[in-house]
Amino acid sequence: MSGIPELGRRVKDASREVARASSATKDAALLGGADLLLARAAEILEANRADLARAEESGVSPTVVDRLRLDARKLEGMAGGLQQVAGLPDPVGEVIDGWVRPSGIRIERVRGPLGVVGIIYENRPNVTSDAAGLCLKAGNGAFLRGSSAAIESNTVIAAVLRDAYAKAGLPEDALVLVEDTSREAAGEFMRLTGIIDVLIPRGGQSLVESILEHATVPYVIDGDGNCHIYVDQSADLEMARAIVVNAKCQRPSVCNAAESLVVHADVAEAFLPAVAGDLAGVELVGDERTRELVPSAGPATEDDYATEFLDLKLSVRVVPSLDEAIAHVNRFGSGHSEAIVTRSLEAADRFTREVDAGAVLVNASTRWVDGEEFGFGAEIGISTQKLHARGPLGLQQLTTAKYVVRGEGQIRT
Amino acid sequence: MSGIPELGRRVKDASREVARASSATKDAALLGGADLLLARAAEILEANRADLARAEESGVSPTVVDRLRLDARKLEGMAGGLQQVAGLPDPVGEVIDGWVRPSGIRIERVRGPLGVVGIIYENRPNVTSDAAGLCLKAGNGAFLRGSSAAIESNTVIAAVLRDAYAKAGLPEDALVLVEDTSREAAGEFMRLTGIIDVLIPRGGQSLVESILEHATVPYVIDGDGNCHIYVDQSADLEMARAIVVNAKCQRPSVCNAAESLVVHADVAEAFLPAVAGDLAGVELVGDERTRELVPSAGPATEDDYATEFLDLKLSVRVVPSLDEAIAHVNRFGSGHSEAIVTRSLEAADRFTREVDAGAVLVNASTRWVDGEEFGFGAEIGISTQKLHARGPLGLQQLTTAKYVVRGEGQIRT
Repeated sequence: MSGIPELGRRVKDASREVARASSATKDAALLGGADLLLARAAEILEANRADLARAEESGVSPTVVDRLRLDARKLEGMAGGLQQVAGLPDPVGEVIDGWVRPSGIRIERVRGPLGVVGIIYENRPNVTSDAAGLCLKAGNGAFLRGSSAAIESNTVIAAVLRDAYAKAGLPEDALVLVEDTSREAAGEFMRLTGIIDVLIPRGGQSLVESILEHATVPYVIDGDGNCHIYVDQSADLEMARAIVVNAKCQRPSVCNAAESLVVHADVAEAFLPAVAGDLAGVELVGDERTRELVPSAGPATEDDYATEFLDLKLSVRVVPSLDEAIAHVNRFGSGHSEAIVTRSLEAADRFTREVDAGAVLVNASTRWVDGEEFGFGAEIGISTQKLHARGPLGLQQLTTAKYVVRGEGQIRT
Repeated sequence: MSGIPELGRRVKDASREVARASSATKDAALLGGADLLLARAAEILEANRADLARAEESGVSPTVVDRLRLDARKLEGMAGGLQQVAGLPDPVGEVIDGWVRPSGIRIERVRGPLGVVGIIYENRPNVTSDAAGLCLKAGNGAFLRGSSAAIESNTVIAAVLRDAYAKAGLPEDALVLVEDTSREAAGEFMRLTGIIDVLIPRGGQSLVESILEHATVPYVIDGDGNCHIYVDQSADLEMARAIVVNAKCQRPSVCNAAESLVVHADVAEAFLPAVAGDLAGVELVGDERTRELVPSAGPATEDDYATEFLDLKLSVRVVPSLDEAIAHVNRFGSGHSEAIVTRSLEAADRFTREVDAGAVLVNASTRWVDGEEFGFGAEIGISTQKLHARGPLGLQQLTTAKYVVRGEGQIRT
């Protein structure tokens, strides 16, 4: 097998060709990839069975096994994802804005590919095709490093898509999967300065910390979602109950699920016992006032307030004011998605201005913060950092912009 | 003196107040700062004389002494810079775009402050006020770490501006200068995760390398400008001569000056001897064909093609095609500003699409790539990276965007 830098250079070279490819060519490769994933389903599922057998032997958790598992329905989802991306508008070449200067020079800001997008991800093999599709449509090379648990599935999926690219006339190295899943290879990967133009880690806190510590390439962090719902004193309490239940329970394992409920003291008595009833099956931990009103709730520690449970557990706090609510959210939030339920225009305005997060919501569930729900068509993650891209990462966020300046011989004097 | 993390927390706290401040308050602080810089000129110049005396004693180069030196004119320039920033539109609160989804949720993308902007810079004390002004106007705290050579000047300038902020009702910790100019302090500074929201280094390659290696906070690199002018076979050669002379000679020490000339073989004979005559006083180094046509030119090494001379020196290469010109520029360019002189629409289109740089210019001098010339009013540097901001960094690039989602109780099903 080739070394990581050599693989990287192959993606880099291929990325130049992808950057110049027409939308029609890229879409043909995506649609061809979708067809080929289904045509070669048997091969993919066989590789997946090998991964699953290894995982079960090594005694990993049922959750991990579940994330690893592919079946006909999931393959159809992967193929459908590629078809959907083929149907999205091509971001490459979009003129974002343009103006003329007194000197007569005409300036345009034009969207273009980043180059090579590196993705380090964990156990879900569907990320291989999802990420590859978005990278290709945005004109980038995809340099993927999945987990060892999914290596056989990922290898076959990547090979299938590379075949589809070649059939469409694109270089197959526009998608390269690193087969060396060692820690050392990951370390080398995140230090490929000049090769990887942006690294997007999709994994837990230890991966993120390793990147902050060791990466020399630029990155966008797809981070945790410790999301709050603040129920203001002027909230429609029926609406608040529905939003809290939806944000906590509809899909508790995802990053835009709510993890913490903050309630204004003036409505705590009217709201908390009622919502606790709605949340049957959800473990509640709260402060003293919460426990007075909801005797079944356990005590909440600072750690609880800082934790993304990703489970049927919710921390609760009663606050005396909007100021304290905002302070609590800014202290414990992870910059993902934070919601207020209120009828007060002033409270809504202050909350949306002062809460520091990628998305702030008024009278809507945090579950809406999602690339598809935002209309991006698909997403490669949700950024919790402030630079480059904040919130859902769609095709646009996989591009950069270039200034194009046109003149008739202008010089500066 | 307080430790770096403690200083950082002070800026962080202050930044929350600055983020909420009205344009009027921020502008009053900037205008007050401009007045106070002039009113306290004697104090600033005395501190500067102490820095200069130390620099001269330690035998640093005249260039460094020149960069350190302040005088009445430079102070007026600094004050004028703050006044200019006060006159710019406030980027905070700008609605970038907005749309409604089928679910009825209304989404806006709203510009807001990054939080704390950290700047590590070298000898020019005017950066202290320039950077502080842009950070404040964009609603950010400014956390500055200048060089030891300029420490006395920087300390007084920062104190003056802090006084002006306090008079305008803003927290003085919206501007904090790190007085510890040790290497260790710089190392600690670039690892203040959770405090510094973006780090902008303004310095040479060794500073940039140190940041790539050690920083854990997000950063935007203000990098080198190894800028090229490509004279196409269809170029107006008179125009090309004027652009080359302007881009090389008008101000050779700046990052948007040209460092390399690439000429199509078909016009080399007509162009190179003529432009060499225009460039009297400029040292030319070139390939074999260049030296045949311009006998006074020395031989160019690969290193010469990769070097940002920042001086009256220019590397020259004759290429057989547009393809080779683009390949040369992409190989040796630093992603800053690259120009083509051509009459061919096809050549202009291919060059602007395929050259990978923050700015690509057609029939205009690279010297135009500048925040003021682009109409940004002022700049804090020019980014050569692709993420977040590419090209001149003005007020907009010192902000982030947040999604604000408004509904009437929408939940996901």
